[in-house]
Amino acid sequence: MRSIARGLGLASAAMALTALTALAGSGVAGAAPSGTESLYAPSALVLAITAGDDPDEGTALRAVTLVCAPRPSGTHPAPAAACAELRAADAMFDTITMPATGVRCSKEWDPMTVTADGVWNGRRVAYTHTFGNPCAMRHGSGALFRF
Amino acid sequence: MRSIARGLGLASAAMALTALTALAGSGVAGAAPSGTESLYAPSALVLAITAGDDPDEGTALRAVTLVCAPRPSGTHPAPAAACAELRAADAMFDTITMPATGVRCSKEWDPMTVTADGVWNGRRVAYTHTFGNPCAMRHGSGALFRF
Repeated sequence: MRSIARGLGLASAAMALTALTALAGSGVAGAAPSGTESLYAPSALVLAITAGDDPDEGTALRAVTLVCAPRPSGTHPAPAAACAELRAADAMFDTITMPATGVRCSKEWDPMTVTADGVWNGRRVAYTHTFGNPCAMRHGSGALFRF
Repeated sequence: MRSIARGLGLASAAMALTALTALAGSGVAGAAPSGTESLYAPSALVLAITAGDDPDEGTALRAVTLVCAPRPSGTHPAPAAACAELRAADAMFDTITMPATGVRCSKEWDPMTVTADGVWNGRRVAYTHTFGNPCAMRHGSGALFRF
């Protein structure tokens, strides 16, 4: 049955290149935001933590993926909380990385940089923020950069 | 039991800041590249396809995630093939987006742009390539941008 279907597919593909494209598209199984006809503008990010203050020179210590549409997923440990935070902040990352009030960290300079790259609501994103030290990062990175 | 464990955690955390860092790290459940002590430098990308020749202005039509370490995963429809392609090309994306020989596409200008953002082997990546039209993209995007 499967090979018959495949045979039919190939036959119609030979008829027109457009048909081939359509078949190839529908043959993709399990891709989350699966086509131009998706109801959702794609939102997918790679979040990384790099020691130092230059994410383009340093080596990322950790990196996770976060997909927020159609539903929260990815290798992020708490995708639902991270996506909720991003939505609440309207993807203004600086709102999320703002230091919490009432938290005391030393002023020691041992910088850690967080980055967010990818696509949010269909728009390309490249965000960088450097914290003075790991304590500042721990208290100012929200659920988004807690991984 | 859980609250006891948490209590113990907090107690020891109070003893040393280093201990707190270690605990926070080990408390993250299910994160793929899970810590600084990971054997693998993280490799996670967001791949997107945008109509037009300016990915920073246009809206991404589709976006998928691709994680290549410790094993291929993500919303990409063929993560194993895409990771193998990246490894073979040593993450030189231009090698992958090079037009296949012997393929004929019209010269019509209807640009499509592919982007790859995130981290590869711990290094931050931001790649952009514009194809002249969808035919050129279809024949020059490898497994990596076929989604």
